[in-house]
Amino acid sequence: MRLESTLSAASSDPHPPHGSVRPGGRTARTRAAVIEATLDELVRRGYDDLTVEAVAARSGVHKATLYRRWSTVDGLVSDALDQAAEQPWQVPDTGGLASDLRALAQQIATGFTDPDHGARPTALITAALRSDQAAAALGRFLRGRLAQATPLVHRAIDRGELPEHTDADALLRALAAPLYYRLFLTREPISADLADQAALATLAAATAGVFTTR
Amino acid sequence: MRLESTLSAASSDPHPPHGSVRPGGRTARTRAAVIEATLDELVRRGYDDLTVEAVAARSGVHKATLYRRWSTVDGLVSDALDQAAEQPWQVPDTGGLASDLRALAQQIATGFTDPDHGARPTALITAALRSDQAAAALGRFLRGRLAQATPLVHRAIDRGELPEHTDADALLRALAAPLYYRLFLTREPISADLADQAALATLAAATAGVFTTR
Repeated sequence: MRLESTLSAASSDPHPPHGSVRPGGRTARTRAAVIEATLDELVRRGYDDLTVEAVAARSGVHKATLYRRWSTVDGLVSDALDQAAEQPWQVPDTGGLASDLRALAQQIATGFTDPDHGARPTALITAALRSDQAAAALGRFLRGRLAQATPLVHRAIDRGELPEHTDADALLRALAAPLYYRLFLTREPISADLADQAALATLAAATAGVFTTR
Repeated sequence: MRLESTLSAASSDPHPPHGSVRPGGRTARTRAAVIEATLDELVRRGYDDLTVEAVAARSGVHKATLYRRWSTVDGLVSDALDQAAEQPWQVPDTGGLASDLRALAQQIATGFTDPDHGARPTALITAALRSDQAAAALGRFLRGRLAQATPLVHRAIDRGELPEHTDADALLRALAAPLYYRLFLTREPISADLADQAALATLAAATAGVFTTR
């Protein structure tokens, strides 16, 4: 979730998986430039017209380097998701479960609908569904984000707002699923109202004990 | 939802969109054979290896006919979804909302996980996400199925089990979304337990009035 901030923070990537240059070094800068160019191309032209050559031209990185390190456009899309997954993510912590869930749902929705920053995450996930390789990276990214958000649920359990054995992961998936379902499966617009509804539905189910394990 | 039955009922299609031959006539039989072959190829070889030529060979329909009527593999995938959308669908009617929702969630889950029949719907939706054309057909299919299921919600309102102004469509999306989210976005297996959880979560939210309009 909150892809728009992670995607624009490419140059601060602390864990470049390719090469051994220190953070902020040439390898990291090259990767950041290439991913930036990939996202630009996806937003401007779409997956069907995405080519390694166009990313090379836009990034200023030699296409031989791109072919060697990323192989294909699907390699580029996968790496954009892997890089996004490496970025820190500020999980809402408002002091109460209802407002935390509402903030989280709004954060997810805004990540895809923000007029300035929503196009990249939307284009990236749509592109990820275009190949098995990138779809696997998308799965890793989403599961990673869900895992990062579990403290939100554990704090609510500690405050006595949720049953003790609430499955944090199941709860968070219930919150995210209706938004992703519309955006990427039925391909319909989402709104702030829909995000609020997802948060309220998740709250009602969670407090009723639907997500408890055992 | 319930794709497995609709997909295997290809030859009884009452509304062939191509040609003007009567139901069960040659145009409908050709379409049924081509869609059958498309689904077979998707399950056996996957989208990356799907070709118009292979579908022609498997169906026994001349490839010139395929190119003329379906143009591309994405045209074939789209038509498979459009045909599935035309099939009648037996929406659960067990006499109570909780058991109706549970039956519906299990029906969706089984449609994708049944050892004999689940591979086709899974392969078809995965393939639909591979092109804008087929993704649009998937959106039509899913929205159509949701619309067909609204009587389930209206019956519950009539029985006094749900608030009067419950939005049937919103409720049904909440039920389906967690299953689709796992299958096609995080790419994780789903289970009968997960389907039950989706049904219970939707029931808790709906009876709390989360899906009421105004």
